[in-house]
Amino acid sequence: MRGLRDLVVDFGGTNIRVAHMEGDLLEDLRTYPSRAELDSDGLRDHFLGVLEDYITDVGLRMRLAAINIAIAGQIDCYAGLVRASPNLPSWRQAPLADWVRDRFAVDVYVDNDVRAAALGEMNALGLPQGGDIVCLYWGTGIGGGIVVSGKLLRGLSNAAAEVGHMVYVPDGRLCTCGKRGCFEAYAGGWAIQSIARERAALERDAALHPTVTTADVFRLADEKHVAAEAIRDDATRALGILASNLVVLFNPSRLVLGGGITAHHPHIRDIVAESIERNVLTVDKEGLQVVLSTLGDKGALLGAASLRNHR
Amino acid sequence: MRGLRDLVVDFGGTNIRVAHMEGDLLEDLRTYPSRAELDSDGLRDHFLGVLEDYITDVGLRMRLAAINIAIAGQIDCYAGLVRASPNLPSWRQAPLADWVRDRFAVDVYVDNDVRAAALGEMNALGLPQGGDIVCLYWGTGIGGGIVVSGKLLRGLSNAAAEVGHMVYVPDGRLCTCGKRGCFEAYAGGWAIQSIARERAALERDAALHPTVTTADVFRLADEKHVAAEAIRDDATRALGILASNLVVLFNPSRLVLGGGITAHHPHIRDIVAESIERNVLTVDKEGLQVVLSTLGDKGALLGAASLRNHR
Repeated sequence: MRGLRDLVVDFGGTNIRVAHMEGDLLEDLRTYPSRAELDSDGLRDHFLGVLEDYITDVGLRMRLAAINIAIAGQIDCYAGLVRASPNLPSWRQAPLADWVRDRFAVDVYVDNDVRAAALGEMNALGLPQGGDIVCLYWGTGIGGGIVVSGKLLRGLSNAAAEVGHMVYVPDGRLCTCGKRGCFEAYAGGWAIQSIARERAALERDAALHPTVTTADVFRLADEKHVAAEAIRDDATRALGILASNLVVLFNPSRLVLGGGITAHHPHIRDIVAESIERNVLTVDKEGLQVVLSTLGDKGALLGAASLRNHR
Repeated sequence: MRGLRDLVVDFGGTNIRVAHMEGDLLEDLRTYPSRAELDSDGLRDHFLGVLEDYITDVGLRMRLAAINIAIAGQIDCYAGLVRASPNLPSWRQAPLADWVRDRFAVDVYVDNDVRAAALGEMNALGLPQGGDIVCLYWGTGIGGGIVVSGKLLRGLSNAAAEVGHMVYVPDGRLCTCGKRGCFEAYAGGWAIQSIARERAALERDAALHPTVTTADVFRLADEKHVAAEAIRDDATRALGILASNLVVLFNPSRLVLGGGITAHHPHIRDIVAESIERNVLTVDKEGLQVVLSTLGDKGALLGAASLRNHR
């Protein structure tokens, strides 16, 4: 019998991605549909079936060490509970770790996907224990993962680092979280789309039409469409201020920029670096490196493998 | 010979306060003038003389375990170096720990006063190791001390938690740090005075005169002076947003409010609690207690005694 293997899972709203670890590398990465529309029991059975299929197909049945699951939402990592997940609305207080452990009889670790991704970045950077890292993910939402002295910043309810929901404009735009003025309500992908559509409704602009998307806004801005440039620049300015505030607060050795929008617009690194230059105390940016994530969408999978060391 | 004692020192811009620890309590607290106007060597000799006098007077000569010094400014706590201190301008890269160790031949610990005060709060709260604490000090400046998993948040240059210099208003009012739009430039005691004097110059108001102070603003606001109320309320609103953002980021078990202005206006606790109620995600305020500091101006002295455990 060959050595034991860790299964790693990134359970998103659209796809369930499953792989296993061979040393520090992902092996046999496969993608399955999430079926987020199912009810709670249906989603549980679907997910357990996906794991069953993967384990059988890849021939890991007798060689599983642990199953490590990264998932968006509020996760109680100690109880292995999905308290709430915006992408998987039928799961409320879902005992995911128990379900998986009962079926496969191995250790199970569950945590928030952005926290897991931050661990992946830390491992990839190979930083010493003392190296504090701030990861800022810019996509549909704005997420954060923060590593302090080599440990994930969790807080009392494992809900620390909700960076997108810090206030940017007091009593400002309504956010999907129900509060007002969050950074995400100005710079998240969903907000960029909302702002563009509002402007389209006001201005009767052929390019900024009522079904314009975030990707359209960025494309139009690249083509020097004035209103699209303004929308993009307002969003990147907010992101720069957010990044600056995190650097002032954590005085980190690395600021890692990731997420779907960043992946398509790596130039954001320069904009963020300029904002930090202007908005951060000298002492807080000493030794700081602002880098793009090199892990792309594999950060959560790679980080999930080390969740057991970060309880 | 009785047991060894720790000396604790809070070196501010006006006073040097010295005490020694008897168990968890301060004994023989004495106050000496800082003489911040002296040149670097003069200030060194004055400070060493103060310690010498205290040790002789209190009869600690043969009973010193360590000397623990809390001091405002940028401190390299590992080298015991005062890199820069706004209150003691003649010290730049001053090897304070070496000076004191050479004279008294005991262990010497030096750290930032706000970091030390946060340790004092942690000790006073008697929290378990996992209890994350955010301390927010509202006085002439706005300082922060943050404890994560029982350890001080330091960052790469021991310059983390500079909460007053996070951006509140992008490209806003000029701050004493040289940047624009910092929370401190809207809510620090010095800023409240500046704003009141600017308004006095514009409005020719008998109450808001050109030499009005921060204390005057608060007194006038209590007397329902409209402009003073507006200045005070703008400042407390900024403080509430700052506190909210720190709670979203750290998901702490305690938010401790201290500092000179808070001590005189304890009602700020309710204003901050209301801001958190409005501006923080439900999951991030679960289990949170917003409390006033109970240590007053003794936090840094009490915390200094445990600096050796927080390197």
